[in-house]
Amino acid sequence: MKFLPFSALYKPKINTAIGSLFDRIIGQMKNKFLIDYYSEMKDYFLAGGKRIRPLITIAAYNGITNTNEDEIVLPSIGIEFLHNATLIHDDIIDKDDFRRGKPAFHYKFAQYHSKYQFKKMNAAEFGTSIGIIGGDTAFIRGSEAYFNNNFAMNININSIQYYRQAFAEVIHGVLIEIDMVNQKNTSIDEYINMVSLKTGALIEKSILIGANYGKIEQKYIPHLSTYGVNLGIIFQIIDDILGTFGDEKVTGKPTDGDIREGKRTCLLIEAMSNLNETKKDHLVKLLSKSELINEEVEEVRDLYKEADAINSCKKLASKYNQEAKDALEKLKPVVNESEIEFFENLLKFVLERKF
Amino acid sequence: MKFLPFSALYKPKINTAIGSLFDRIIGQMKNKFLIDYYSEMKDYFLAGGKRIRPLITIAAYNGITNTNEDEIVLPSIGIEFLHNATLIHDDIIDKDDFRRGKPAFHYKFAQYHSKYQFKKMNAAEFGTSIGIIGGDTAFIRGSEAYFNNNFAMNININSIQYYRQAFAEVIHGVLIEIDMVNQKNTSIDEYINMVSLKTGALIEKSILIGANYGKIEQKYIPHLSTYGVNLGIIFQIIDDILGTFGDEKVTGKPTDGDIREGKRTCLLIEAMSNLNETKKDHLVKLLSKSELINEEVEEVRDLYKEADAINSCKKLASKYNQEAKDALEKLKPVVNESEIEFFENLLKFVLERKF
Repeated sequence: MKFLPFSALYKPKINTAIGSLFDRIIGQMKNKFLIDYYSEMKDYFLAGGKRIRPLITIAAYNGITNTNEDEIVLPSIGIEFLHNATLIHDDIIDKDDFRRGKPAFHYKFAQYHSKYQFKKMNAAEFGTSIGIIGGDTAFIRGSEAYFNNNFAMNININSIQYYRQAFAEVIHGVLIEIDMVNQKNTSIDEYINMVSLKTGALIEKSILIGANYGKIEQKYIPHLSTYGVNLGIIFQIIDDILGTFGDEKVTGKPTDGDIREGKRTCLLIEAMSNLNETKKDHLVKLLSKSELINEEVEEVRDLYKEADAINSCKKLASKYNQEAKDALEKLKPVVNESEIEFFENLLKFVLERKF
Repeated sequence: MKFLPFSALYKPKINTAIGSLFDRIIGQMKNKFLIDYYSEMKDYFLAGGKRIRPLITIAAYNGITNTNEDEIVLPSIGIEFLHNATLIHDDIIDKDDFRRGKPAFHYKFAQYHSKYQFKKMNAAEFGTSIGIIGGDTAFIRGSEAYFNNNFAMNININSIQYYRQAFAEVIHGVLIEIDMVNQKNTSIDEYINMVSLKTGALIEKSILIGANYGKIEQKYIPHLSTYGVNLGIIFQIIDDILGTFGDEKVTGKPTDGDIREGKRTCLLIEAMSNLNETKKDHLVKLLSKSELINEEVEEVRDLYKEADAINSCKKLASKYNQEAKDALEKLKPVVNESEIEFFENLLKFVLERKF
């Protein structure tokens, strides 16, 4: 099955599972603020998202077990919670009040603050405080997906381990990225390492968790990992391109953010390696500024174009795409044809996406 | 054994276990920044702390099993990591750059920022970003205490559940407290509920985790819970008193912080219930100000004195102390005399502490 029909089939089930997990928590709460808190978090989770990570878990499980039972839906949402936990904290770190046109979690609570008559904290502080705790909550609540399901505890325990590893790796990726922003030079290998952790880990663990419940033979795990990490790398490379050259109306994201933040994107690293010394120095100088005017953002964009950075990045993505396809080839003995098709098509979907 | 000799015996072992957990992680790291990050976190963890939570886990286990093997030391540090995770995030939320005279975790990284020559982020932003991630790291690394120890996985899984519950409950306590600061009135019952979650949960789970490894009979669990939660409540009531009337040189904490932040302390709630309407209104008015001058802080302190708030709080603490003692009485059939003495003495230590 191709990605889009598979998504159309399972996304509603995934959303129902997410909603039910929150409804169960909300049902246990007596404090009015905690009810509001979890209700806002439920809204935040259900406001959007492609649900790629749960879909991958479900496809891996179905493809290995040759079934399409819904028992995998609940454990599939764990990594989606973890993903949202990282988004909530990232938006505070990056001071983004909106994500894809919708209020960031902390910003929802900056707005909520107006409900109080007695205002000891200011709205922004209140929002940030609730947001820091909100990321913690999303992370801790996600692990519940591995406790209240139809699988045996000795299988769930592996998922809990993957969940922990995934979070630790994302953290390492985010830390390396923050450190990089304050470093002058970044090599493409450092970039790939950072991206494998920051974006690859969650996708890799999504497929490994599905395969864990499907009880796959150990020897296939490296191929699952390669597919997952590489899909993450491709996802991030395309994200970097869209972040500067995408259509804001389609991506829902301003195209000057990455440049203004001095983010170590694939575009920047490829441009640095393709440009001559003079232009490279000029690029470094522009990026080191604490604030860029619009003309300077445009200058950076022009330097990227001059360096043919988009094509260099696409070439890099192709390389990881080929490796991911080779890994899928090796999984054919143990994964159903229909789900192999899903995984192949997902690569294509991620590589060609415009949003 | 009394609290202090027990602490003298086990604190070095606890600190060694914490250090070893970090050393193992640091040994796995290749990235220079990640090595620095975990080294700073290790320093932060080892810079101080009474280790009450791990000591409680160890005492519960030893008392129930009638052994004093060191196998319990590793799992005992889990809740200490969780405790530090909450401190790291709390210090960001409360904008405290120091804790007991030592730099807060986020502040360590605001200072670390000077090591960069190329400064894209400013120091405070850098510190906050690393601090948000630092709390996440402390939480996730703490759960490792339940994976790499000498106990069977089916026993460890209960500890993992307690660990998750503890974090969820602390989060609820912190959220209720933030909400309270923006509410005009707080009842003593609401305060006790908040404190049971914010402070009681970690202590309760410390004793339950020790008892879990000691394989205690289910019927004793409610008494362990009562002891743990009540010890937490007493701890917080005394903390509230010391936070406004303690000796800064001994506590290492400024005595105007709680008043300036408008925190819902035991003192404030007792004062509100003891004062007449006019003085109560005046107190509310003072506390609603976004910033207080020194004279106003002193006015609040005087109103607390006038309301005899310290004694009211101490009376409240005595009530919970008696309940905790009654719970200990019921544990005597299954907990060694020496550890019962530890738990009794710990109540006294917490009740009478000046720091």
